[in-house]
Amino acid sequence: MNPRSFLDTQSLPLGEFQELLALADARSRDGARDALRGRILVLLFFNPSLRTRVSFEVAMHRLGGKTIALTGGADTWKMEFRDGVEMLGDAAEHVREAAGVLSEYGDALGVRCFPEMKDLAEDRREPVLGAFARHAHVPVLNLESATRHPCQGLADALTLNQAFGHARGHRVTLTWAYHPRALPMAVPNSFVLTASRLGVELTIAHPEGWELDPSVLEAARANADATGGAVRLTHDRDEGARGAEAVYAKSWGGVAYYGRPDDETRAKAGLRPWIVDEDWLRRSDDAWFLHCLPVRRNVVASDAVLDGPRSLVRKQARNRVYAQEAVLLRALASA
Amino acid sequence: MNPRSFLDTQSLPLGEFQELLALADARSRDGARDALRGRILVLLFFNPSLRTRVSFEVAMHRLGGKTIALTGGADTWKMEFRDGVEMLGDAAEHVREAAGVLSEYGDALGVRCFPEMKDLAEDRREPVLGAFARHAHVPVLNLESATRHPCQGLADALTLNQAFGHARGHRVTLTWAYHPRALPMAVPNSFVLTASRLGVELTIAHPEGWELDPSVLEAARANADATGGAVRLTHDRDEGARGAEAVYAKSWGGVAYYGRPDDETRAKAGLRPWIVDEDWLRRSDDAWFLHCLPVRRNVVASDAVLDGPRSLVRKQARNRVYAQEAVLLRALASA
Amino acid sequence: MNPRSFLDTQSLPLGEFQELLALADARSRDGARDALRGRILVLLFFNPSLRTRVSFEVAMHRLGGKTIALTGGADTWKMEFRDGVEMLGDAAEHVREAAGVLSEYGDALGVRCFPEMKDLAEDRREPVLGAFARHAHVPVLNLESATRHPCQGLADALTLNQAFGHARGHRVTLTWAYHPRALPMAVPNSFVLTASRLGVELTIAHPEGWELDPSVLEAARANADATGGAVRLTHDRDEGARGAEAVYAKSWGGVAYYGRPDDETRAKAGLRPWIVDEDWLRRSDDAWFLHCLPVRRNVVASDAVLDGPRSLVRKQARNRVYAQEAVLLRALASA
Repeated sequence: MNPRSFLDTQSLPLGEFQELLALADARSRDGARDALRGRILVLLFFNPSLRTRVSFEVAMHRLGGKTIALTGGADTWKMEFRDGVEMLGDAAEHVREAAGVLSEYGDALGVRCFPEMKDLAEDRREPVLGAFARHAHVPVLNLESATRHPCQGLADALTLNQAFGHARGHRVTLTWAYHPRALPMAVPNSFVLTASRLGVELTIAHPEGWELDPSVLEAARANADATGGAVRLTHDRDEGARGAEAVYAKSWGGVAYYGRPDDETRAKAGLRPWIVDEDWLRRSDDAWFLHCLPVRRNVVASDAVLDGPRSLVRKQARNRVYAQEAVLLRALASA
Repeated sequence: MNPRSFLDTQSLPLGEFQELLALADARSRDGARDALRGRILVLLFFNPSLRTRVSFEVAMHRLGGKTIALTGGADTWKMEFRDGVEMLGDAAEHVREAAGVLSEYGDALGVRCFPEMKDLAEDRREPVLGAFARHAHVPVLNLESATRHPCQGLADALTLNQAFGHARGHRVTLTWAYHPRALPMAVPNSFVLTASRLGVELTIAHPEGWELDPSVLEAARANADATGGAVRLTHDRDEGARGAEAVYAKSWGGVAYYGRPDDETRAKAGLRPWIVDEDWLRRSDDAWFLHCLPVRRNVVASDAVLDGPRSLVRKQARNRVYAQEAVLLRALASA
Repeated sequence: MNPRSFLDTQSLPLGEFQELLALADARSRDGARDALRGRILVLLFFNPSLRTRVSFEVAMHRLGGKTIALTGGADTWKMEFRDGVEMLGDAAEHVREAAGVLSEYGDALGVRCFPEMKDLAEDRREPVLGAFARHAHVPVLNLESATRHPCQGLADALTLNQAFGHARGHRVTLTWAYHPRALPMAVPNSFVLTASRLGVELTIAHPEGWELDPSVLEAARANADATGGAVRLTHDRDEGARGAEAVYAKSWGGVAYYGRPDDETRAKAGLRPWIVDEDWLRRSDDAWFLHCLPVRRNVVASDAVLDGPRSLVRKQARNRVYAQEAVLLRALASA
């Protein structure tokens, strides 16, 4: 694996994470520059994307580089990710060749690969992202994988820091929200992992059964210990709002129901009230509102909250550009 | 709405329309320049495109800017355009976020969104283009919407002017043509609205039942009054050809059959002779031939006409580049 | 047809082919340059692509030019390729307009169009590539057509030359391999046509019934006569390996079964041993291994061969960039 790959934030030492965040912040106050002139970024999307694709193209362009974006499946061949198999089925190309060849063409390779959401252990293995990281010889950048969305997490941390001056010591809540589908946990995982490195008082509110991955919570607690923050959990919806200075709303399918969407739908029937609206936010300390987008309006959060003066959702999207400029500079800039 | 948006031509005062046309003409005689260096154009296509997409990329490149083109549906999330709904269905993203976020990334936003063709009143509301225009804070450019194709209209007006020196006073016919499907009226609408501003003697020929939208005809007549031209209608196919110096062929589904394609197919059974061929053109004054493309050969126009010496169809396509350079400069160039 | 088009290698005189190969070799040792600044390459893909699309974008970028890539079907209109028809069916656009219009926008036009694989005579006519070449007025570049993949063939010839210093006089085998589907012959055709121009001792090994197109073999023999090489055929699998210094593996559907995939599947049942693995290669003279990719692992070639020290597959992919830079310079550079 190329040591400049960016697969998650947690594998970076704390100091390096803080430097990356500082670089992103600096880029948010600076104009275009030519640091990556002549460099080529290849983006491979196995799933839809709006923000990630456009913000990466903008970031690379602002740095003077070129992006080539491919839609897996439509533009390319069906791919095999398992090693050692006799490829007699649908897949015409093995990830070993795809990663190897794209490493010949690009200076870095971004990959988006959502989870199958059938088997948690399998998704935690990151079979697609991991295979690209192993078989590419250029840096691989995570454009949202089965369990992590580190570019989003970095942009979210930047947004929190900018909202508060610095987020250290501030009270931040991640609240689960109702959603008609069982969504991946990549965004809440990455948010918990980056926010906990800011030294915030982090509350995670969700109904019983929608626990996050224990390994993520453990890493978050270690982050909090290292930065003077805290992580606490609650199943009480109102408790999540009380005193919060920033609220991050997100739906996810919990580990208790992983791979059983019908069971989850039944269990979720009474949870429609888990929405971030003005009424719920009244318990907060005039909290900033964050969401990674896309968001289901009047399901995950109300129109009034999304369009209100404390909404940072567009700022978060803008910060994706700066976060990714930092990631690109780390991956590609000459020493 | 951003005042530099370009949603139709008719909302521009006549003087501004004429300036835009003059700028497009100047660009057709000039080479690449750097006026939009560092600027980013995002194009969002909810429908197929060949000319519009490529000509916009070429125009932006000639001006030194960068284009990011997205295919709605394939590349992005299914979108909700209605306000205030609880998003529990298929749509994962609301146009408010899509427009807002793309405004953070691009300096202008182009949108292609064909009509549903079920309810004329609904399509005239321009629900998709209008929503993007309301919720984007950068200029929104119409890449063909439910009822208008103003970039095509501008290129067509430029082509007419170039064919005649200036088109003022020349006899121009827009003739309906047979086509197996009921097509949108965006192109004939925009052609009628731009041609009528050139001061031409405009004849619109179509069978009974294939009337254009009365509001468009009214605006066209006002345009003609202001520029010393005229607009007249005929249901007599031959009358359309007689004495014409330029003929624009186009099929469209008329307002009388809107949303009733089966009725329209039956009513159209005898109208196959409405084709532009050499025989019909013999009645004209050696007319130039125009069509926006794509065109069904030997249905809308014959091979001989399309490939003949008076065909301007490739010139029209080329002029899309210059028309759109003018639109881009109006939207994005510094004062 | 534009004389700078690149539809196959065989239509180039031998001297011009050798110059192109020398230019590709020079580009492989040289960095970016600005020879095509301001030039635009339009790529139109009717079939999936990974290597061809990305390597063309990289090549054009290294030369300072811009690429616009379109996916036929998804991004564009369904196209008609036959002349003189009344277009009352599904196709909304004729290749005459598509080629004509794209010639207005781009300085060169690349087209990928796989064969129908129903009727060999029809596929040999190259109905799609030929139509674009006839109706475009800019150079048309073959991105893999019904029967030829000349960019691959050029990159393969470059790779052979680089592996041996110069390939002249070396023993090279093209061996058929088992594959669950009947694949096009474009790659083996182009390999046979370019390798035979290097003056190599070329052996083509395949089971009875999987003959290549006689017209290709005839041209290859003429090439060999002109360059002091030889072309011989064998149905003996082991004979293909014996003494070979380079082995090119590829599956193809033979002319004997053209358009009859079910018959071919039955006939192929016993041919699974036609795989390039270490055991088979033991008969060779420590042969280099080549394949155009994508490759079915452990079907066409074994993991050990593909990942082994004599595998040139990634080098071939990299050489696509340099081969195509040569093709682009030939098509577009000023005299």
